[in-house]
Amino acid sequence: MGMGRKTFSTHTACQNLKRLSKTFEDKKFHLKNLIQNKDRLENFSLKLEEFFYDFSKQRIDDILLNELLDLARETGAKDSFSKMMSGKIVNVIENRAALHTAARDFTHGPVLLDDLDVISEINRVNKQIKYFSQKVHNNDLKGSTGRSFTDAIIIGIGGSYLGCEFVYTALKHTIEPVINLHFLPNVDIDNFGQVIKAIDPETCLWIVISKSYTTTETMANLNQALLFLKNNHLDPLKHLVTVTAKGSPGDDPSSSGLGAFHMFDFIGGRYSVTSAVGGLPLSLAFGFDIFSRFLKGCHDMDLHALNAPEKKNIPLTAALISIWNSNFLQYPAQAIIPYSSALSKLVPHIQQLSMESLGKGVTSDGKITDHKTGVIIFGEPGTNAQHSFFQLAHQGSPFPIEFIGVVKPIYNKDQAKSKGVYNHQELWANMIAQANALAMGRDNDNKAKYFTGNRPSSTILINDLTPESIGLLLAFYEARTIYEGFILGVNPFDQFGVELGKVLATDIRGQIKRKNIDETYDFSSLDPASKFYLDTLFKGSL
Amino acid sequence: MGMGRKTFSTHTACQNLKRLSKTFEDKKFHLKNLIQNKDRLENFSLKLEEFFYDFSKQRIDDILLNELLDLARETGAKDSFSKMMSGKIVNVIENRAALHTAARDFTHGPVLLDDLDVISEINRVNKQIKYFSQKVHNNDLKGSTGRSFTDAIIIGIGGSYLGCEFVYTALKHTIEPVINLHFLPNVDIDNFGQVIKAIDPETCLWIVISKSYTTTETMANLNQALLFLKNNHLDPLKHLVTVTAKGSPGDDPSSSGLGAFHMFDFIGGRYSVTSAVGGLPLSLAFGFDIFSRFLKGCHDMDLHALNAPEKKNIPLTAALISIWNSNFLQYPAQAIIPYSSALSKLVPHIQQLSMESLGKGVTSDGKITDHKTGVIIFGEPGTNAQHSFFQLAHQGSPFPIEFIGVVKPIYNKDQAKSKGVYNHQELWANMIAQANALAMGRDNDNKAKYFTGNRPSSTILINDLTPESIGLLLAFYEARTIYEGFILGVNPFDQFGVELGKVLATDIRGQIKRKNIDETYDFSSLDPASKFYLDTLFKGSL
Repeated sequence: MGMGRKTFSTHTACQNLKRLSKTFEDKKFHLKNLIQNKDRLENFSLKLEEFFYDFSKQRIDDILLNELLDLARETGAKDSFSKMMSGKIVNVIENRAALHTAARDFTHGPVLLDDLDVISEINRVNKQIKYFSQKVHNNDLKGSTGRSFTDAIIIGIGGSYLGCEFVYTALKHTIEPVINLHFLPNVDIDNFGQVIKAIDPETCLWIVISKSYTTTETMANLNQALLFLKNNHLDPLKHLVTVTAKGSPGDDPSSSGLGAFHMFDFIGGRYSVTSAVGGLPLSLAFGFDIFSRFLKGCHDMDLHALNAPEKKNIPLTAALISIWNSNFLQYPAQAIIPYSSALSKLVPHIQQLSMESLGKGVTSDGKITDHKTGVIIFGEPGTNAQHSFFQLAHQGSPFPIEFIGVVKPIYNKDQAKSKGVYNHQELWANMIAQANALAMGRDNDNKAKYFTGNRPSSTILINDLTPESIGLLLAFYEARTIYEGFILGVNPFDQFGVELGKVLATDIRGQIKRKNIDETYDFSSLDPASKFYLDTLFKGSL
Repeated sequence: MGMGRKTFSTHTACQNLKRLSKTFEDKKFHLKNLIQNKDRLENFSLKLEEFFYDFSKQRIDDILLNELLDLARETGAKDSFSKMMSGKIVNVIENRAALHTAARDFTHGPVLLDDLDVISEINRVNKQIKYFSQKVHNNDLKGSTGRSFTDAIIIGIGGSYLGCEFVYTALKHTIEPVINLHFLPNVDIDNFGQVIKAIDPETCLWIVISKSYTTTETMANLNQALLFLKNNHLDPLKHLVTVTAKGSPGDDPSSSGLGAFHMFDFIGGRYSVTSAVGGLPLSLAFGFDIFSRFLKGCHDMDLHALNAPEKKNIPLTAALISIWNSNFLQYPAQAIIPYSSALSKLVPHIQQLSMESLGKGVTSDGKITDHKTGVIIFGEPGTNAQHSFFQLAHQGSPFPIEFIGVVKPIYNKDQAKSKGVYNHQELWANMIAQANALAMGRDNDNKAKYFTGNRPSSTILINDLTPESIGLLLAFYEARTIYEGFILGVNPFDQFGVELGKVLATDIRGQIKRKNIDETYDFSSLDPASKFYLDTLFKGSL
């Protein structure tokens, strides 16, 4: 991570990969020729406990895989990961550690950061979460009119809700929530209008999540919530908790209501679901024990990502596959297709995790990149996606796909058979068939029915939708993203690309504020388009 | 559309565009230089009633725009559109018309197709929808235990639900549904398990939507629903309606329950929301009058798309911009970012509409394409997206963005101000600022804080979330997609790319069926990976 390190393209392994990439053109290498190879799956799949990763339908062979593993070694990826987990300053540009792994460290050893034992700080907050959620569940803590809490609204945007929304959606298929969660990320007043339709103000707790407690959208929604509580004659401080940094405005007893739960500088927003950001809402929804089981799954994957040698390391291998696909086979995107409705919110979370972490134009030592960094991540659950955008995947411009299957479904009541199979079996038949169809293709004299094939995919299997399995899945994607960043030589922990928009929004907001005060103000200092938009907004119609 | 037409790349306008594209490289053309130009917005925006389309922040100039319009003329795009609306066989490869526009034709003139007056057929079905939904709303038609219907579950996948889900989600912010809609697209049994948690079986109507009434997922979910109704001691035929083709198995009185509502061969799934596919559920939810107002909005845009000259034609211009971005500036994707929670389901619908229509590898006269066809469409509502993947948009690999703003919000109760502005104003400040930031960029000696700018975007404004405005928006995207298809020379109405996966799924399903019958069956005829997946599925764990 130091100054003057080699740029990505100058690594020996990179140059070898670039040379090799020509031998992987469709005419020279085709996946259809490998499908019947009996060792292919064994040699190109990895397993950790009940997490299985199959990359046998990627456009790679043994030689290529070894070269990719050399790239990991040459870039010191495992060493960087180890430094990260031990609390070194891996986010150099912001002079910060990145210790989300410590949030689920069950080794009980201290992790020191400037003499602060991070683990004991985390344990302190987790204890606070545990007791608070128990008090709510036992009705020892109620709303200001004496009624028990039934719902919680999370006010938080980006990393302050996407991970939590994913885990909540995944687990609520299996576990009936004690407290129902609702999410209010957007500053859109109609988002607010919809969310409050779903709750009873007397039995609702508001959880305000912002590290700095200055995030514009979150503060605007908080103000709107406070007005709403006041209009409903409820004491805001008895209906509100905060998740925020120590010493932030939200940590002040005058603002923190029923409690402030600390988040830390050393855990970035998009890596924060295992901190209080996810811990408080998920413990309220399902109990602290369920949250702990989720942490255990994450921790198991963390240890694997740290300790497994390159060749056996699942997130590292997956990172290398991503880099091969983006930088050498030139795919501009990657789809994630979970064959499980419960995982429907995985994609928006990984979209943020990956695109914000890797969507960089500068290396971690401050040079303009000369290679591809992040790609577009998108997806919908299968089989829905098959009836939506898979036309483009099969016959249009190809993009690698990551299929995700869950071995055991949750529904355990009477099930119908159709065409001789149960619905869950039909779901799997489709998942298997799609990967095969993409790889194999099919010739046809009618070119409208011709499939080139040789379109790459991976398949991930998890055993079930237990908290442990969801933890494995989450931490896999976190570790993969970070490994991609380390190998690509970009900083996966900053996000300076969102700053310019914030600066310009401040300018526009200032203009609106002036007009709110003085209705004769005419925006004439703005560019013509911005002026037109603000005129339209104030006019109230086009 | 005939045989032997010129390929895309050989059009004179294409060759001119290719030559011109070199003059639009960042160093020669930069949007930041145009922002203050007082005519830029006026010359590069179009308006229809209360629908506004601003393409002033696209990487184009007057000369380029004229060349694009020449491409539209050279490819006879408007003529093809006109043929489509009058019922000619524009889907040549399947020998079908494409008459979704007739579903909202308020001119009351006949549209003839093989001597069948399409309009009178559509009117017949619409009357049936009107009376059926009135009967349900007036409690003249109730569930089998005598209780009024409160909920409806739509069983249908792809085009049989995505458009309806979009319109329902958009309108329910404004209009309280009489009947709440739920969607069961996926064959995932856990999707079923979640949906039935939300309803009371006695007050729930099931709407089964499939043109052929053979769609695998839909039939599997229907069977599961029938079992569920039986287990709840309810008469299935009193809790079910079908939307299907005349003469399909679902049209048979023994299957159609409370009624069969016809859909037609001349309206493809992804263009079908204005037919009974959307008409029945939306009329049940909001009343037939609301559905009619939505149709009116669509019709207005259809007439504009048909009649406006190239230079004033909004969907045609938008199609040309898409083609310029994909084929000449080489952007592999396009994001759609509605600054409105109510429009959160627009993107999955347009993702299907566009990627299935345009994701082709073959021209409409059967030749392998030598140009880009469809691109990846993805997106999330803003400002959420700013805190998720906009890092990549600003500093990583660029992609064009389409911002959508709604002038008037719905929420009309007390509103809080933050930093001197209301939440809706804050939302707009962000939307305006993002487009400006992408276009302008900003230099910085610290390259981590450097923005290249010159990143293109369009902005669409609609006045409000009324049914008419949603209709304008829907029909805009339909017409744009079709114009793209006509100009690119691909068939926007077929989807042969989804067939191979279906064929291979049938093979796998057959294997599962055998094993369900004979547990000693061992899948040894399958390739090793497929065998492994099926063994795992039957074992029930990894």
